[in-house]
Amino acid sequence: MTTVEDLITRLESEADQDRDPETTPDVGVVMGSDSDLDVMSGAHEALDELGFAEQTDFGDAPAERFTYETYVVSAHRTPDLMYAYGGAAADRGLDVIIAGAGGKSADLPNMTASIAYPTPVIGVPVQEKSVGSVIGMPTGAPIVAVDAGKSYNAALSAVQILSREHEELRGRLTETHEDLRADVADVSERLHDRGVDGFRADRG
Amino acid sequence: MTTVEDLITRLESEADQDRDPETTPDVGVVMGSDSDLDVMSGAHEALDELGFAEQTDFGDAPAERFTYETYVVSAHRTPDLMYAYGGAAADRGLDVIIAGAGGKSADLPNMTASIAYPTPVIGVPVQEKSVGSVIGMPTGAPIVAVDAGKSYNAALSAVQILSREHEELRGRLTETHEDLRADVADVSERLHDRGVDGFRADRG
Amino acid sequence: MTTVEDLITRLESEADQDRDPETTPDVGVVMGSDSDLDVMSGAHEALDELGFAEQTDFGDAPAERFTYETYVVSAHRTPDLMYAYGGAAADRGLDVIIAGAGGKSADLPNMTASIAYPTPVIGVPVQEKSVGSVIGMPTGAPIVAVDAGKSYNAALSAVQILSREHEELRGRLTETHEDLRADVADVSERLHDRGVDGFRADRG
Amino acid sequence: MTTVEDLITRLESEADQDRDPETTPDVGVVMGSDSDLDVMSGAHEALDELGFAEQTDFGDAPAERFTYETYVVSAHRTPDLMYAYGGAAADRGLDVIIAGAGGKSADLPNMTASIAYPTPVIGVPVQEKSVGSVIGMPTGAPIVAVDAGKSYNAALSAVQILSREHEELRGRLTETHEDLRADVADVSERLHDRGVDGFRADRG
Amino acid sequence: MTTVEDLITRLESEADQDRDPETTPDVGVVMGSDSDLDVMSGAHEALDELGFAEQTDFGDAPAERFTYETYVVSAHRTPDLMYAYGGAAADRGLDVIIAGAGGKSADLPNMTASIAYPTPVIGVPVQEKSVGSVIGMPTGAPIVAVDAGKSYNAALSAVQILSREHEELRGRLTETHEDLRADVADVSERLHDRGVDGFRADRG
Amino acid sequence: MTTVEDLITRLESEADQDRDPETTPDVGVVMGSDSDLDVMSGAHEALDELGFAEQTDFGDAPAERFTYETYVVSAHRTPDLMYAYGGAAADRGLDVIIAGAGGKSADLPNMTASIAYPTPVIGVPVQEKSVGSVIGMPTGAPIVAVDAGKSYNAALSAVQILSREHEELRGRLTETHEDLRADVADVSERLHDRGVDGFRADRG
Amino acid sequence: MTTVEDLITRLESEADQDRDPETTPDVGVVMGSDSDLDVMSGAHEALDELGFAEQTDFGDAPAERFTYETYVVSAHRTPDLMYAYGGAAADRGLDVIIAGAGGKSADLPNMTASIAYPTPVIGVPVQEKSVGSVIGMPTGAPIVAVDAGKSYNAALSAVQILSREHEELRGRLTETHEDLRADVADVSERLHDRGVDGFRADRG
Amino acid sequence: MTTVEDLITRLESEADQDRDPETTPDVGVVMGSDSDLDVMSGAHEALDELGFAEQTDFGDAPAERFTYETYVVSAHRTPDLMYAYGGAAADRGLDVIIAGAGGKSADLPNMTASIAYPTPVIGVPVQEKSVGSVIGMPTGAPIVAVDAGKSYNAALSAVQILSREHEELRGRLTETHEDLRADVADVSERLHDRGVDGFRADRG
Repeated sequence: MTTVEDLITRLESEADQDRDPETTPDVGVVMGSDSDLDVMSGAHEALDELGFAEQTDFGDAPAERFTYETYVVSAHRTPDLMYAYGGAAADRGLDVIIAGAGGKSADLPNMTASIAYPTPVIGVPVQEKSVGSVIGMPTGAPIVAVDAGKSYNAALSAVQILSREHEELRGRLTETHEDLRADVADVSERLHDRGVDGFRADRG
Repeated sequence: MTTVEDLITRLESEADQDRDPETTPDVGVVMGSDSDLDVMSGAHEALDELGFAEQTDFGDAPAERFTYETYVVSAHRTPDLMYAYGGAAADRGLDVIIAGAGGKSADLPNMTASIAYPTPVIGVPVQEKSVGSVIGMPTGAPIVAVDAGKSYNAALSAVQILSREHEELRGRLTETHEDLRADVADVSERLHDRGVDGFRADRG
Repeated sequence: MTTVEDLITRLESEADQDRDPETTPDVGVVMGSDSDLDVMSGAHEALDELGFAEQTDFGDAPAERFTYETYVVSAHRTPDLMYAYGGAAADRGLDVIIAGAGGKSADLPNMTASIAYPTPVIGVPVQEKSVGSVIGMPTGAPIVAVDAGKSYNAALSAVQILSREHEELRGRLTETHEDLRADVADVSERLHDRGVDGFRADRG
Repeated sequence: MTTVEDLITRLESEADQDRDPETTPDVGVVMGSDSDLDVMSGAHEALDELGFAEQTDFGDAPAERFTYETYVVSAHRTPDLMYAYGGAAADRGLDVIIAGAGGKSADLPNMTASIAYPTPVIGVPVQEKSVGSVIGMPTGAPIVAVDAGKSYNAALSAVQILSREHEELRGRLTETHEDLRADVADVSERLHDRGVDGFRADRG
Repeated sequence: MTTVEDLITRLESEADQDRDPETTPDVGVVMGSDSDLDVMSGAHEALDELGFAEQTDFGDAPAERFTYETYVVSAHRTPDLMYAYGGAAADRGLDVIIAGAGGKSADLPNMTASIAYPTPVIGVPVQEKSVGSVIGMPTGAPIVAVDAGKSYNAALSAVQILSREHEELRGRLTETHEDLRADVADVSERLHDRGVDGFRADRG
Repeated sequence: MTTVEDLITRLESEADQDRDPETTPDVGVVMGSDSDLDVMSGAHEALDELGFAEQTDFGDAPAERFTYETYVVSAHRTPDLMYAYGGAAADRGLDVIIAGAGGKSADLPNMTASIAYPTPVIGVPVQEKSVGSVIGMPTGAPIVAVDAGKSYNAALSAVQILSREHEELRGRLTETHEDLRADVADVSERLHDRGVDGFRADRG
Repeated sequence: MTTVEDLITRLESEADQDRDPETTPDVGVVMGSDSDLDVMSGAHEALDELGFAEQTDFGDAPAERFTYETYVVSAHRTPDLMYAYGGAAADRGLDVIIAGAGGKSADLPNMTASIAYPTPVIGVPVQEKSVGSVIGMPTGAPIVAVDAGKSYNAALSAVQILSREHEELRGRLTETHEDLRADVADVSERLHDRGVDGFRADRG
Repeated sequence: MTTVEDLITRLESEADQDRDPETTPDVGVVMGSDSDLDVMSGAHEALDELGFAEQTDFGDAPAERFTYETYVVSAHRTPDLMYAYGGAAADRGLDVIIAGAGGKSADLPNMTASIAYPTPVIGVPVQEKSVGSVIGMPTGAPIVAVDAGKSYNAALSAVQILSREHEELRGRLTETHEDLRADVADVSERLHDRGVDGFRADRG
């Protein structure tokens, strides 16, 4: 079975490979426990919708131009793995990290932000009670955060960051957004024109 | 399918029609999402009880003297629709707006209040956590709000406002209130006279 | 010295006089204690700016068309006075009541709303901790509230209510608002065009 | 059907009867709504355990020396009934009032305390969010309160108050308490001596 | 210097003296630290206003019929003294205890209530953050509490309890209350009749 | 049936036996009610995993070198039992106490810490709302606490304390920890290498 | 004096100029009021330290490669200006917006994020109570936020975003960070080696 | 000037020296910033009172048997230093660590607890808002904490831990405690016997 030490070795060896940035994951998604996956998978959903592919083998990039990877990293059970992941991020070619954690000591996002600096980290508080711990960084140690559970938005924000450099991503962001807007217009018109009772009847 | 732009065009065109105020909706009900409808329909219930009719076609007013309309308007997904709705409110003949939204950034009520000013807006926080965001306006930018989820009361308050001008509405407000008071008297007497055990037995 | 009973007698006698509504106060401002006056005087300030006059003698109306009056009414020390004030409100010709109270049991606004119903009452929580108590009314017993300490906005809202019937008030509301907007434009341009350091230097 | 006015008349007429205190209810239990009954019936349970009888007819006292009565009184829907109940309390022979209400504006307990003063009122916040509103009285307007939902304790406290005058009640209070203590001793010994696993197995 | 053990001996010896209740303190005021005295002295002030005298020598009662005494008892530094004080309360002739403590573990009031039961204890949270700890007792272990810092009201409540047995105290409670009401009436009339500006000018 | 007094006698008699420390429980686990057992049994689970045995008979120690015992002790229903347990702790050979309680007045942990001082007490707030009451001790009266519900961690901490003296326990603590770390490494590798969809499919 | 309409015209005209991105501000700093300037100027400080210049004339770029601009935009007093600023952002060449606002309805950051989308917006809650309103966006409407008052960190994050495209900025970010780290090392060594008393004495 | 790297080298070299435990610091005090020193120096004060000496040179132990050392370690600015300190703790001979940090992401205490495990760490939240972040560890990653600002108690708890092995420390802990108890007895007697007014007069 893999040990924490094995994973650390893997990450450090990947950092040493000096890969072409186009073949490394653009977005790293980390979470404190696999029990966070249901909340965090909003990020994967958004990235998939925006045309990103999941890279499961660092040495073998998917055909798609933009990719992401996922790891479980526990700040409190595996602080050494957290340190290795954050420390190797830039050399492994990551451009943005999305880090989610729950509980009142949700340290993974902000510790990763401190270690991986200046690579930007978007913190996702997995629970409402995690917001303060994720966002509360001292002056000089930046993190940006989304609201509790909003991993979908974290992925949009990650792509907004990437889109500064990659203009094609702006188009993808706008397209997704237009769908959302069309949904509002559609439901608004139906609710108004059918009236409350009619709308409800239609909804069944 | 209707687009946000279509709806904006519709609202602006209605604003230009300079309709007789007696044929336009008196109360506009807007909400951030149709998922808010279950909470917001307390407003429709109260308005129905007070003899208001729902107007689903701006150009074709119901026979009843007092009417309301309903739209979904998302502050964060369709800010342009929110601007159009608030900006056209007075010209479309609305006298009061009831605006409900959920989440911690429940911006629809207070943004609508700012845009539609001086038309009065009654904010309905759809969730407990929305109260602060709905109510917290700076000096000079007024909104009035009811408690979380109290859309029924928002409608009563809207009619209290209309009743300043339309005295007949005061009578309707008092009648509804008398029913409520009679319910209290009835249950109070039964609980007292039957005793706790008897009352419970009666309730089955 | 005046007793609570004297004041109750006075209010009830005024209610019996059946005065011409144009000569009675349009807005009644009540507060739980004179220690609330500093917070509540934002309401007086706004009313003054909008051309309202203070009516200090019920039998002798000022020349101005729109007027307000002020009383101290303690829900917990003088509940009978609170009942008398709320109960006499409509007959004394009040159109809107602004009621402010502090503490965690800020009962004056909501009790007044219950007693004076269907006359609209705008609650002003005098302290942050008063918000829940002011706003938290059950279904069927409406109050509308502004944020803690926002008595100025409460007065704007009161006038928004009156302006449904009195169109001239809409103009006054808009004028005041334009001044506020001009201030924003002015400071925004100066901050931008002078730059942060220049702006601060100008401010001295 | 009974009206609020009927109940007020009833209470006032009872207050005028100048009954022998031994035949009037010692404890009055009031609550804002019959939906509070499930929480408030802890008070009835405790009073029953302490040998109190429920008096459902003011003119016809039960044989037991100590009695209680129950009414629904809504502060916000029937403020006049609340005023009548609190105002008539002393003359109707009540010695202590237990008043429970829910919501964030849980005004029944503290308004009743203000009106019935100096008859002592024990406030029961029916929900956690009612605590602040129940307890937050200004200086000079006393109420005492128990924790949210603790109507059982409110009844014990009411009897502690009565026991100052009626020594026999102290004995009853102590007996009930001994049962509670015996339960703790019993479970403590079994948990310790059987061990955690044995204890759980016994519990099934 | 006195030791904790000396005080315990003193209290236990007083409990054994079987004194005439008319010569023992009616109200015991305890606080967790002398730093609480500024908050707690509201209780002394109210008791003084109601004609109570302070008894500083258990063996030598003042001439006044109603008396109180004061001790510092720290739940966490002197748990044995707390146990002795609560345990001896009934035998030392105390009828009501007012117990105040600060901090988030404000255990003195509720532990004293548990130990002195069935003697009634009124808890005074000395700080806002102490409210939960003071009030949060489990079923079967009653305490009643006032709001944070309201020691004055705690004393009124204590006297309300005593007044069940001692009717003369009801009169004193009502008199004090009338003064308070007169103050409200006076300031209310002056604010109304002089107007806001005149009232302020008068106040200087 | 056992009474509280019986248990007190038992504890005091055990304290007088001057037993060999190797035969007395090292860790005492107390909780306010047997309804806390589900939360508190995390402590038993951790102690079992670390090779501790439960001692259910003070006079008959298990063969294992390290042991624990469990009692129910209610601060508010049986304050005398709490005093007896805390007071006898050192003489009964306890090295660390783990004390858990729920509610807003979770006094058992901190009162036990005050009484048993200088024996260390680790407080376990059984509910989130118990945290403040457990942790909030004044200067000079120490307690250490874990987060709400974390009785498992409280046991680890208790053993960390014992391990200062007993080096063999450090090894056991590290072993348990390694298992935990291996779990993280395993799930992390599988999530990454299989990808989100593959991982979920594997999980079934 | 400039009006809101003047500013809107200015912004829209600048958007139409299709300027070379190298001559437009990279970062736009907006705040709800000039009273927020003291909190928000942390952003200017950080940008200055990182070699950015303030651009006070859109048509006349400073010599430095990276620049920022500053405007006051009130969401509630000037919603039209907010709409114009956000709507023109991309065409005016802004790459990132830092938006700060205070109060409980801190709508400027999240409304700007909605309007300027997909240009990234970093929200700065100017007060602790603004955090929820700034961060609480619904799915599909992203914002990223820093902690209350952390405008300095918001600027670092803005530059982290820009640094994805402009590698030279990474170097500047790291340099600033090294200074911060050196400060920690220095004070840590002095505190340790001098001891607490010596360190304090040195500090004077 | 010392760099972070210098300090890390120093700590690692000390860890390699395999010093006699009697000559190494028993307690390590770390804090996130020297601005925390005023809060954290309560720990130094308590340690000094209990006869501990400060060791400012790892290679040159003071004569006293028990010693402590102090470092500033910033979790977010110098995560590598935090890893080095926690990782070297056991080998540098530390028996207990007291770690304090402020802010809402007070990560130093819990990260140090994770890294230094199984060496016990006592967390000190430097501000009230730091409590959740310090205490909120997941199952399997223990920390114990004191209340916000209670560094004095943290030191007492650290010595309680050491006293399991070093019996002489129990005596010191008890002595200090007796002084505290004597203070309570003294002030309690004076307040009671002099009366409130007399006590105040004495205090001047």
